[in-house]
Formats: sequence, C-alpha cells, structure tokens
Amino acid sequence: MYLLGLDVGTTGCKAIIFSPNGKIVSSAYEEYQLHHRKPEWAELNPEEVWAKVVMVTRQSITNAKIDPKEIEALAVSSLGEAFMPIDKEGKPLYWSMLFMDERSREHTLWLEDHIDIKEVFRMTGQNLSSSMPVYTLPRIMWLRKYEPEVYKNAWKFLLWEDFVNFKLSGVPAIDYTLAARTMMLDIRKKRWNSEILALAGLDEGQLPSVHLSGTVIGEVQEDASKEVGLAKGTLVVTGGHDQPCGLFGCGIIESGPMMDSTGTVECFGVIQKELTLTDKILAQGFPVHPYVLHETYDMLGFNPTSGVILRWFRDNLSYEEKEEAKTNNTNVYDLLMNKASQSTLGSLGLFFIPYFEGSGTPTFNRNTKGAFIGLTLAHGKKDIIRSIVEGLSYELKLNIECIEEQGIDVTEIRAIGGGARSDFWLQVKADITGRKIVVPNITEAAALGAATLAGLGSGMYKDANDVVRQTYGIKKVITPDNNNTNKYNKHYKIYKGLYNSLKVIFDEIATLKA
Amino acid sequence: MYLLGLDVGTTGCKAIIFSPNGKIVSSAYEEYQLHHRKPEWAELNPEEVWAKVVMVTRQSITNAKIDPKEIEALAVSSLGEAFMPIDKEGKPLYWSMLFMDERSREHTLWLEDHIDIKEVFRMTGQNLSSSMPVYTLPRIMWLRKYEPEVYKNAWKFLLWEDFVNFKLSGVPAIDYTLAARTMMLDIRKKRWNSEILALAGLDEGQLPSVHLSGTVIGEVQEDASKEVGLAKGTLVVTGGHDQPCGLFGCGIIESGPMMDSTGTVECFGVIQKELTLTDKILAQGFPVHPYVLHETYDMLGFNPTSGVILRWFRDNLSYEEKEEAKTNNTNVYDLLMNKASQSTLGSLGLFFIPYFEGSGTPTFNRNTKGAFIGLTLAHGKKDIIRSIVEGLSYELKLNIECIEEQGIDVTEIRAIGGGARSDFWLQVKADITGRKIVVPNITEAAALGAATLAGLGSGMYKDANDVVRQTYGIKKVITPDNNNTNKYNKHYKIYKGLYNSLKVIFDEIATLKA
Repeated sequence: MYLLGLDVGTTGCKAIIFSPNGKIVSSAYEEYQLHHRKPEWAELNPEEVWAKVVMVTRQSITNAKIDPKEIEALAVSSLGEAFMPIDKEGKPLYWSMLFMDERSREHTLWLEDHIDIKEVFRMTGQNLSSSMPVYTLPRIMWLRKYEPEVYKNAWKFLLWEDFVNFKLSGVPAIDYTLAARTMMLDIRKKRWNSEILALAGLDEGQLPSVHLSGTVIGEVQEDASKEVGLAKGTLVVTGGHDQPCGLFGCGIIESGPMMDSTGTVECFGVIQKELTLTDKILAQGFPVHPYVLHETYDMLGFNPTSGVILRWFRDNLSYEEKEEAKTNNTNVYDLLMNKASQSTLGSLGLFFIPYFEGSGTPTFNRNTKGAFIGLTLAHGKKDIIRSIVEGLSYELKLNIECIEEQGIDVTEIRAIGGGARSDFWLQVKADITGRKIVVPNITEAAALGAATLAGLGSGMYKDANDVVRQTYGIKKVITPDNNNTNKYNKHYKIYKGLYNSLKVIFDEIATLKA
Repeated sequence: MYLLGLDVGTTGCKAIIFSPNGKIVSSAYEEYQLHHRKPEWAELNPEEVWAKVVMVTRQSITNAKIDPKEIEALAVSSLGEAFMPIDKEGKPLYWSMLFMDERSREHTLWLEDHIDIKEVFRMTGQNLSSSMPVYTLPRIMWLRKYEPEVYKNAWKFLLWEDFVNFKLSGVPAIDYTLAARTMMLDIRKKRWNSEILALAGLDEGQLPSVHLSGTVIGEVQEDASKEVGLAKGTLVVTGGHDQPCGLFGCGIIESGPMMDSTGTVECFGVIQKELTLTDKILAQGFPVHPYVLHETYDMLGFNPTSGVILRWFRDNLSYEEKEEAKTNNTNVYDLLMNKASQSTLGSLGLFFIPYFEGSGTPTFNRNTKGAFIGLTLAHGKKDIIRSIVEGLSYELKLNIECIEEQGIDVTEIRAIGGGARSDFWLQVKADITGRKIVVPNITEAAALGAATLAGLGSGMYKDANDVVRQTYGIKKVITPDNNNTNKYNKHYKIYKGLYNSLKVIFDEIATLKA
C-alpha cells in the first residue's frame, strides 16, 4: 500500500506517492500563476489551483503505474494563511490572498488598536503586528468591508488544506497547525477562539472543524474520485501547515533537532519542550503553533530573504557566471558558490546583512534593509558572494541563540531545501554555528510529512516513532571545524552589533518613501 | 614665445608646451613603473623617472615643431612628499617612496610621541598622524635608521620639483607649496623649521633653498640642454605641488571658487581668506599650505578613493559592460554612468560610503571602510552604480560644509580631472551640493599652472590676474536643479549619520586583521 502527500504551495503544487518506508514512488508538479490585479495585491486563482491539484494527483498515479486503490490515505501540506470564501457546493467565491498581499494591513492595525497583542499571542501563538500582516483573520475582515456581497454569500472560509479536504471528502476540516495560522485558534484549547471571533464579528460556523493532524476526517467521494483519479473510499486525513509538515518529514518528533529549510525564504523550526509564550519571543517574531503531534508545540523562526538574495545577486551582478553556466551547461549557483569558496573565512572583513525585505526573527523589523559593510579595494566578487553566504549563516546562528534562550537545546541542524544542495554553504553554516548539520535522505520533507500523517491516520504506522524509524534516513553529516568556529566567533560578535548600529538609519531610510 | 609645464606625477610624467593664452601647443606623456620591492613598499626608480622626464621634454619640443629657444621658461608641477637623497653630482642614491608606502609609520609614531601634533600643525600646516603617514620628514628618518650608508653619503634630500630644477639649472631649489609637504617648513616664516629639524636631528644644509612659486632660480645649463633638448639659458622657475598648481591652472587666485579634481583620488582645494590653523581642521584632516601666490594659503580636502571605486566596480562587477564596451568600441565608464542615469534620485533609498581605504577629510579615519546600506530586492545594478556616484558627491558636500565653517564662501565648484568628463556625475554633484559647477576650458590644469608660474617668473605675465585673464576660460556650467537639491537634502541628512552609526563597527572590523 501507498500514501499520497499533496503539497499545495505558494507558486505550485506537488502530488507525491510514497511507499511506507518513505521512498518516492512517483511525483508530479505544476506551477500556477501569481496574480497581481493591483500592484500591492498578490493572489491565487482558486479554480486554477484546484485544476492543478487535480492534474498533479492524476499524473502522480499515472506515473506510479499503480492501481489507485493501492493508495491507502492522503493528506495535504498547505501554504499558510491564504483562504477563500466558498459556497455550499464548494465553489470558491473570491481570489486567495498570499502572504505578501498588503491588504490586511488596515485591519491588522485595527486589531492592534482593539486588543492587546500580548493577549493575542498568549491565546493564538501568533504575532499581531503590522510587520507581519499576513494572517487570515484581518483578511476576512478586509473582504467583509470591501467585498460585502462576496462575504454575504460565503458559507465557509477555508484555507488550502481544508478546501482540498472538502473537495475530496465533502467534509470541511482543518488541522491545528494550519488553523493556528489564521490567528483565530486557541492553541491551548485547540478550538476556535471565541474572544477573537467576537471582536472581529465572525462566527465559528463560518469556519471548518478543527482536528489533530493525522485524523481521518472522511473518504474520497464518488464525484471527487472521478475528478481526481483517486479511488472512492481513499482515506482523507488531516495534514498540516507546510512548515510543521516539513519538520515531521525531517523526523523531528521531540525537542532537540532544528529544521533549517533554505529556499527563497529560510525557515527554522523546533519543537518546544513545553508550550512557552513569552513577551520576548513575541517581540522577536517567533510564532508558536500546535505541532502535528498530540500536545506538542513548535516554534518557527524565519529569514524572509535567504536564497532569494542569491537569485538577486545572480540576476543583477552575475552576467559573467550566467554566460559561463550557459556555455558549460552548469548551474549558475554552483559557479557562485565555487567562487565564494575561493575567498577566505570572514570575506576579508566584509560583512553582509540580508534584510532585503525587512528582517525576520529575531530582530523582526520591517524597516531594516540589506547592507554590505567593510568594503575595500582588496575585495573581489568572490569575497562579496562569500559575505552573503556568511551573513545568511550568521542569521541562522542568531536564531539558534534565541531558541536556546527559551531553554531548547538545539542538538543538531537538519538542513533541507535548495540551500542544502551546496556543500560549501553547509560547511559555512556548520563552522559559524559550531553545530553538526545533518542532511536527511529526503528531498520532499513537507510532502513526506503529510503522507506519513495520512499513514498515521490510516494505521499504517503505529505512532510517530514508528514513522521516524521507517522513513527517516541520513544522507550526510557536516561537522564544524572548531578552529574555524573560533575565528568566526569574532566575526559574529561584530555581526551582532550591526543591527543596533544601523537601526536608526534604517528607520530614517524608511521615511524617504513618503 | 612659449612656456613649458612639466608635470611629474605618481604614475607618469607630462611635458606640455603652452602658448601665452594657455592653449596647448604640444604635449608628451610617459608612464613609469611603480616598484613594490616589498608588499608594503611603493617606490619610484629616480633614474627611470628622470629618463622619462627627458623623453617627454624632447618629445614635446619635437611635437611642437618649434625652436627650443622659443620656450621662454619652464616650471615643474610635482607629486608631493616623495624625495630622494642625491650626491653632489645630482645622482640619486635611493628609491623614491610614494604616499602609499607604509614605511614612515614607525617614525610618524615616534614623532607623535615627541612633539605636540597641534604645535606641528600650527608650524607646518600638516597633520602629524598615523592616519596620514606620508610626509618626507619621517621618511628621511627611516632612511637614516635603515639605510645608514645611503644617508651618510647624501648631499641633499630633494623632492621631484627641486630634483628636476637641480638637474636643469644646477640649483637645488624648491617652492613653498611643495616644501610644505615635507612637514619641515615653517609656513608663516617660509623657511625650514629649526625646531622640527632639531627634533629629527636634521640639518638645513641637507635641504634645498626655498622660494615663492614663480621665482627664477636659474637657467638651463649646457649639459642639461644637450640632455633634454631645451635651449641653454631657458629660465628655470619654481613651480609647485601638483594640487596648488592645479588650483592656479583653474584660475583660482582668491578665496571663493573651489577646485574639485576627480581622478583616482578626489582633491578639493580652496584659498583661505587668511591663514587659519584651527584644531578642528586639524582633526578633520585638512592640510594648509602656502599657496603659489605671495602671502596666500590654500586648504586641501581629499577623498582618497573616488574614481578608483568606479574602477573597482568595473573590474569586479561589470563584466557585462566591459563586453559591451569591447563590442561597441565605447568607454566602459560611459556605459556605467549611462546605466546610473537610468536610476532615480536617491537610488531607491540605497546609500553608499566610499571609504574603501579609510576616509579622507573631514571624517579622516583610517579604520573606516566602504559600505552599501539600504539594499532591497528592488535594487538593480543601475541603482547600485548611482548610489556610488551619489555617495562620492555627498562627500564633496561634506567637504564644502567644513570648508565653509572656516568662513570661506565656496562660490562655485571648478571641476577638473577624469570625473569632470561625465555630465551625469557633474549634474549629481551640482544637485547634491546645490552649487554651480564650472568645467574650465582646460584639461591639464597642473601643467598649465606650472607653465604660467614660469611665465610669471619670466615676466610674460604682469601678475596673477593677468594670468587668469589670458588663460582661464569656461567650457561649460552645470546649474543645480533646486527641486532635486531639496530632495537630496533629506538623503544627505541620512548620509551624514552613517559615519557615526558605523564608526564603532569599523573600529571592530579593523581589529580582525590581527
């Protein structure tokens, strides 16, 4: 028997069929379009996304050359926050706003004026801040104000996991981890928070039911079966938000290992020893969520501009390497990393701050910007690229320090995502943090996490330990060079001072826009 | 009749024959090698330089197709500080150390320990500082300690003006402006400073005689005539240090206009209303010298890394533009400036600090480094280049402000050097400073300054006013756009804060070297 993990992301969706030991049997991927109907808007077209989900599901089954009945269960790993209003037939009534959509600022500010952000944090684990105006709650409020007809006709507001669950099983059900990203979940009681709903004037009936990840909520119905090619009766199980699904896919089931998922954005995830919601981690921007496992909580850090800075460097300052990559049919990022590796530890005293779109955890400040500091005539391109890699890795260390201040011992780093492809970058991360870095033997952690949650629901696995035992493996381990770590400590001390040195300047630069 | 200006610089020498109205009749240029016998040393080989001076002099006469007797007089514009010990026959006994040679640090520090730097400033106008360890005085002390035999055999220590004067006329004579760059001249009394000589254990007899610029000190002798091709009896006149020669070549004979000479280094020069030697300008790093005119003093500011940063950007981050320049046979700097002009005022909030080798006036700090601050994903290469041009221009404004604090009204900027070739850069300078920028109708200000000093000595001109009337002309005037100036004022306010924000960081980075 097999498991299906559906990974619905910001720019595309994947359907991956796994065998019980976590090996990929087949997979299919489709991109969808980001719509910018206004410059500051960013949306998905739900019909288009659903059509792509159908395509990849069908394709994955075809590719696997299996009978759909051999798929025991499925679960969805979903992007966060984005929702859509649907009618009773499951028809989406509006576009689905993405995290970078600016619309929810108005109602985020309204909420800030009407409820204590510390109280919100203690109830929902989420950060009510105009620095992170991403949550579902203010977006629904925006819809009510500016699209009243749509709002009136909406039966439910669903995120992408529950939407897919509903389309397949007819049951509008979400799991705790994704529900927490709405800012409407009481993360202790694991139910919709009545105080927040009342403040916003929303009704629990407008929302899906909430369940622990790995809960069977229904079966694929006949109509859905015909549409997506799955067998009728296939178990539909609650999956989760993509980050905790990724953590679970990395075999993280207790406090200790940290996930470092490096793509466009870099995301750091750990399991808390026990639920901890301090003012400090609120100020640092770490959200806390119920995890995919019973009575377990994760804490997420993030650097909003990680790999995307290398893409920026590639697009703006790497014409030579792009030409070389074309000529030699090599990967331009490999060329850039190779160049960086020819520089020396500390990039000849050049420092780089990666806050190209404001900083994530722990400085968490939308006004911050990027910077190169310490340039001399001796610096060449190789030093500049290395300084970027080092700056991104200092951010990793900053996050580890803040996580450890919360009493969590980070025992090792599990690196996934595109950034884990570069041995050079991994070694810099190991040397700067002084931590062992483990690259798991998987490439699709979020989809695997969802699939194994489906397997937990179907009973394929006995428990989370059984999932890890059967599916988790190590591809390679990178150990820090202690000598380099000692040297980097001096640089890191300077790096840590940069934010405070430039904070006022960044605030001043932010005023120039007006 | 004609005048010859000899411009002996750091990397090459020029001989230019001018007609009395300042037009170039002919010119010749030869480069010489910078020798780095040790990595931290930088020297000229005096025999090689003299051979090149002979070559260009001969070549300029040949090119002019004139009888050498038609050259009435000559004078030298010389690089500063570099000296050589010579024997009585005029044979150089050692290499000539350039400003970037690190050797004089030891004796600069010794001097700092043994004499009050404020006292030195009040006597010599020069800044005894390990941030500017360039002067002749500590270099001679180095020679005495580390090359005692050479020192013992030396008859005189000559700089490049007096060396050429001596080779041509047999008279070892220097002018006040260049003599001031030794840090041994009493700039009020216009004679070698006995207190400093005594402290250093030097003797006035080891130095050339000192004269006002434009003073006839001898005639070309028969042997020299044969060697260099000048007529015997051609008047040899004191010229000056290249910066005041440049000022004079720009027609600046009283307080008001400021010279902005933009090459690798950018140099700002004004005439003081009256000799002013405050602690403040000492701390800001402005040296003060006797000017080429009687009882007049100039004050020089500098940015040690101006055009050289564009070269750095060309060499490290402009592969695309270099290829384009090759293909289309255009100038790569023109392409870079054209790209910068496609960005917008303020470079989308990106700031650039040009302190790639420490800062010049007025922050004057060897620990400072370069920086880009304010980067976002929206920034492209055009914004990066523009931020460099703007950063260099903010430095110009900083210098003007400090100069004006001394009671000098900067009435206009006279722009010369390679940087004055770019209309875009000139307009940015005009807009940022809010000043009129005048590009004089000359390209070789220092050589013209020397030649017209020769003409003053020979009596071709009645006085300095006569020189200006006959030789100074305007090529173009760039007026500031007041609207842009207002906008730039906001950016400049932020720019001014950057130095203080980063000072401590720069000090910390400087400690990494050890």
